[in-house]
Amino acid sequence: MEQLWLYIGLGASLLSIGVALYLFYWVKKQNPGTEKAQEVASWIREGARTYLKRLYLALALVAVILGFVIAVVFSFDMANVSSGAVRINPGEGVRVAVAFILGALCSAVAGYMGMGIAVEANVRTATAANESLNKAFRLSFYAGSVMGLAMVGLAVLGMSLIYLVTGDAEIILGFSFGASALALLAKAGGGIYTKTADIAADLVGKVEVGIPEDDPRNPAVVADNVGDNVGDVAGMGADIFDSYVASTVAVMLLGASSSSLSSFYVVLPLILCTLGIFASLLGIQFVRVGKNGKPGPALNFGTIITTIFFAILVLALVLLGDINIGVLWATLTGLITGVIIGFTSDYFTSEDRKPVQETARVSGSGAAINIITGFSYGLVSIVPSVIGIAVATLLSYYLAEMTGLPGIYGIGISAVGMLSISGMIVSADAYGPIVDNARGIAEMAGMDTEVIETTDTLDAAGNTAKAITKGFSISAAALTVLALFAAYAEVVAAAGIEMNMSLRDPIVVAGVFLGAMTPPLFSALTMLSVTGNAFKMIEEIRRQFREIPGILAGTEKPDYETCVGLAAQGALASLILPAFLAVGLPLLIGFLLGPNALGGFLGGSIFTGVIFALLMANAGGLWDNAKKFIETGKFGGLGSDAHKASVVGDTVGDPFKDTAGPSLNTLITVMSLVSSLFAPIIVAFHLF
Amino acid sequence: MEQLWLYIGLGASLLSIGVALYLFYWVKKQNPGTEKAQEVASWIREGARTYLKRLYLALALVAVILGFVIAVVFSFDMANVSSGAVRINPGEGVRVAVAFILGALCSAVAGYMGMGIAVEANVRTATAANESLNKAFRLSFYAGSVMGLAMVGLAVLGMSLIYLVTGDAEIILGFSFGASALALLAKAGGGIYTKTADIAADLVGKVEVGIPEDDPRNPAVVADNVGDNVGDVAGMGADIFDSYVASTVAVMLLGASSSSLSSFYVVLPLILCTLGIFASLLGIQFVRVGKNGKPGPALNFGTIITTIFFAILVLALVLLGDINIGVLWATLTGLITGVIIGFTSDYFTSEDRKPVQETARVSGSGAAINIITGFSYGLVSIVPSVIGIAVATLLSYYLAEMTGLPGIYGIGISAVGMLSISGMIVSADAYGPIVDNARGIAEMAGMDTEVIETTDTLDAAGNTAKAITKGFSISAAALTVLALFAAYAEVVAAAGIEMNMSLRDPIVVAGVFLGAMTPPLFSALTMLSVTGNAFKMIEEIRRQFREIPGILAGTEKPDYETCVGLAAQGALASLILPAFLAVGLPLLIGFLLGPNALGGFLGGSIFTGVIFALLMANAGGLWDNAKKFIETGKFGGLGSDAHKASVVGDTVGDPFKDTAGPSLNTLITVMSLVSSLFAPIIVAFHLF
Repeated sequence: MEQLWLYIGLGASLLSIGVALYLFYWVKKQNPGTEKAQEVASWIREGARTYLKRLYLALALVAVILGFVIAVVFSFDMANVSSGAVRINPGEGVRVAVAFILGALCSAVAGYMGMGIAVEANVRTATAANESLNKAFRLSFYAGSVMGLAMVGLAVLGMSLIYLVTGDAEIILGFSFGASALALLAKAGGGIYTKTADIAADLVGKVEVGIPEDDPRNPAVVADNVGDNVGDVAGMGADIFDSYVASTVAVMLLGASSSSLSSFYVVLPLILCTLGIFASLLGIQFVRVGKNGKPGPALNFGTIITTIFFAILVLALVLLGDINIGVLWATLTGLITGVIIGFTSDYFTSEDRKPVQETARVSGSGAAINIITGFSYGLVSIVPSVIGIAVATLLSYYLAEMTGLPGIYGIGISAVGMLSISGMIVSADAYGPIVDNARGIAEMAGMDTEVIETTDTLDAAGNTAKAITKGFSISAAALTVLALFAAYAEVVAAAGIEMNMSLRDPIVVAGVFLGAMTPPLFSALTMLSVTGNAFKMIEEIRRQFREIPGILAGTEKPDYETCVGLAAQGALASLILPAFLAVGLPLLIGFLLGPNALGGFLGGSIFTGVIFALLMANAGGLWDNAKKFIETGKFGGLGSDAHKASVVGDTVGDPFKDTAGPSLNTLITVMSLVSSLFAPIIVAFHLF
Repeated sequence: MEQLWLYIGLGASLLSIGVALYLFYWVKKQNPGTEKAQEVASWIREGARTYLKRLYLALALVAVILGFVIAVVFSFDMANVSSGAVRINPGEGVRVAVAFILGALCSAVAGYMGMGIAVEANVRTATAANESLNKAFRLSFYAGSVMGLAMVGLAVLGMSLIYLVTGDAEIILGFSFGASALALLAKAGGGIYTKTADIAADLVGKVEVGIPEDDPRNPAVVADNVGDNVGDVAGMGADIFDSYVASTVAVMLLGASSSSLSSFYVVLPLILCTLGIFASLLGIQFVRVGKNGKPGPALNFGTIITTIFFAILVLALVLLGDINIGVLWATLTGLITGVIIGFTSDYFTSEDRKPVQETARVSGSGAAINIITGFSYGLVSIVPSVIGIAVATLLSYYLAEMTGLPGIYGIGISAVGMLSISGMIVSADAYGPIVDNARGIAEMAGMDTEVIETTDTLDAAGNTAKAITKGFSISAAALTVLALFAAYAEVVAAAGIEMNMSLRDPIVVAGVFLGAMTPPLFSALTMLSVTGNAFKMIEEIRRQFREIPGILAGTEKPDYETCVGLAAQGALASLILPAFLAVGLPLLIGFLLGPNALGGFLGGSIFTGVIFALLMANAGGLWDNAKKFIETGKFGGLGSDAHKASVVGDTVGDPFKDTAGPSLNTLITVMSLVSSLFAPIIVAFHLF
């Protein structure tokens, strides 16, 4: 039975990858537009490739080194360390290392495919926008789907294969760690890259020289557009990819370690992923705008219909497969909470609601008031999501317990339930940066204002989808790490130490404090990298304007490549310290203070990680939309004092929402994974 | 033996109050300055009195109502609730209620004395600054000491009296709750008041009309100066007052509930407070500036010498009194950590260091970069303090365990150790707003530029003292609430439920999540009140300028009273929701989800409370000093683009450091106290 399902999973993942490839070539076949547009697009494409090449080269190096370390470390069998017997088992080391590298590879390929299609789709979307909104929408959404479907396909493929071959859920932990480690670096690096370029381009372009956004005379404009791709498309996909895999692995581990569950429940999370793939493939067909229709509701409709399909499939599975009904309740809890949290996040960042409008209104009194107000609403926005997470935790736990499942297994299933429709969620989300870039290309290639208006409409829908996805992915990550946290405790217990996670134990409290400070520190490091790198780029832009006078006159082409190179180099160099925090700090705490302190550390990092991720995502989105709201002519409109103030808020919000905030999910996942993976070694070290 | 020490405590407290009264009258005897200066000072004095009258009237009402509720609730003896037997014991209810009201009263009197002397001392300091820096420094520091000494005196007086009369540490919990509840409202209300006036005065005065700070033509200038007194003097004193009492009570409770400790260890924290009073009285004598000396080092020297005196006294106590040596280690751990954390906080807010200078440097590129950089350094500033708290927790716990004391008792003693020198700490801190106001009066009364320069020098030293005190008080509050947290668990256990505080229990995790969101929410509510109220005041200022044209010409006196009234009314109305959060939310969680969830809730609120308090205090101080650094002529100096950007940062930082940040310590203390106080009722409710 499990075997059969694993093969169905393999089939579904190949189908998903197949559809992604089909859409990839379909998009590439569309009209690439005028020569001018193609030239502009080629700058962006080349810039993106340059960055990705450097990034993946660096990451390959990291992966090989880490893989080697893992291979060595896991060759020591610690199962009987308490009796002093350590056997050497190189086969195990190689298996974990291969899984790790495979995970990193899948994550990289999914990111690369998403990027590859995004840089092709943007110019084609701009061109299609010349014809109709409908066509442009379909093109950009299908391009987004390439990313979404490739991601879930590769994830399920990798996990099913490893489990078929090894039959050991702990090996998949290595896969997940590989995927998450790569995701973290891709996400943080992309986030630093994109905002370095964005801020530098704006500060010199808009403020000093007074040329509009996306003006081709700005030497940083290509780097800025490249940034949208590497930060938003590749980074965001990697983000959900890692939660998706991590939640599945966590539940597999919980299933394997529970004595009361049959082996079917180890495979069950993979089955849910498989059903989620089918639901997403179906749901994507329903995302269409009618004539003069609105793209925003079309995206939301796709999410809702996919959710319903998935719920029906799970219902059928439970009824036909004679499976514990608790699985259905936990799945539904996760699904419904995910959707609700997604939509409430929207409240704080939507132009129709009080937070954005109020922030826009007070902007007339200056930038400081805009910042205080937006930041305060960002803090308030934490509340509904946190209550949602708390309710989902309690509901899925007690519903599972009531039906005879281990409660913590229920929490894990609710995370998997949320994430199983990732295929659709990521598709809707990847759409955003594609249309954002289409707008940039339309501007740079001098297309009609009508085209730009159409891309603006598409873009606004993208922002809403983004806000929803962010709320969704943060909640899912929270539940995922709760499940991982439980899995960590199981691994420690299996290695021979009964975990004590009591807040009355000072070592746990000290761990929680240290864990709680890590997400803010991580955010600070990435944001300081952005400002530091932006300064270097500002110097370069100023140098070009000074030394090549033809640029501003429009007679000479700026040196885009140098700016692209600077951003890439700066972003990669800035990753060293954050990477140490993510991988090194948990190990340091574990070896120094022991497994209980490390458990507290993980707990603390989850609490503040979730809170800062919500704050930064929502405050950033709110400032962005307050600026856009003023630009529609409210409170003085474009060029007014209110608008100037709102631009400050928007610039502050940029690294909040695109650099620091989105990496936090991945950070806490990586820290949980590295702890679980190394837990047997840490326990052995302390038992010795 | 204990009895004797209680009488010594009473004596020390009366001595401290006596010295405070003596200094009060000494300050009042000093030259009150020119008629013009006296007139200006009288506006501020009247404004402050108006606010305090309203505040204390509102608080008296709250205290009476809460006291009545407490009297009723605690008349039910829940000791045998598990067997279904509830006896009625009105005597107990009255005792707790009286202790509660006494606590509120002491807190109010200490605040009122501090305020009373501050509004007298500011004009006298300005006048003395005309003669010499030395004289002005002595006057303002002694005025600050009135607050410091009155506070510790009243606290020890109240606690000793109650324990002498009842012999029951749990009754002192009522005293502590009264003190903290009043402190929270005074602090949050004062914080909202002061920044409402400050922001409104700046935005209309400096930005719209272009008149300098503290210009008497600004209708909000008196409200602004009143705000400095009610926010900084009264509020800050109340802040440390409440940690001081709460830590003492927590340790008394822990001593009483431990079966291994003799009754002497119940009184021990009061003895440490008594020794701290003696050390502070001595230390204050050593705070002097030589000719052309610097006031900053003089204040720091006072803190260090007091610390040394206190350490010697404790050493003597332990050696002569045949007391467990662990008490000395725990005290020293607290003292040393407190001083170290205080001085490292200084690193992030000092003009000589990288964070402030770097933030000032990048300001040339606009307000947004200033905000991102300052905020990021604020996040980094969390790290040393959190590590310090974690180390202090572990050290004091294990040092106590090693010497045979209960570990948690050691943590409590380290908090008491930190806070026992509060007499000196508060004196140095209250000095700041007094010289700040002296500067305002010098400006408004048109004194010589030399006088203003002298007050500027005094003011800079005040800012450093403030930064140190803030780091100190946040760390002390963290250790205090950890001890309170343990006390809560003891109370719950005594009431018949064995606490489960494991992070593997979903109800605890849900509690932690809900607790973790509370400090950010509280901050947001107070900051939104500031901007909301500032807008109302801006309207009023604009109305006055419009309707009374003589104001700007300098021929007519603005209507200061209306602005003072608006700020007072707004601040008080804004307290309702935050007050509910502090008192109502813990009770709601406790009754709804049970004592384990409430334990998690308290834990969560401690973690984020400490982190947000550090972030807001340090980022706010950093932005303030970055602006001041630019004003010394760096990076373009006054009026440059960098300066304008730094003004935005400073304005954002104002509610961070003076409204939202400082209330958070008190918030978590109040929540812990209300939980401990009501724990028997909550347990009874869940056992029924």
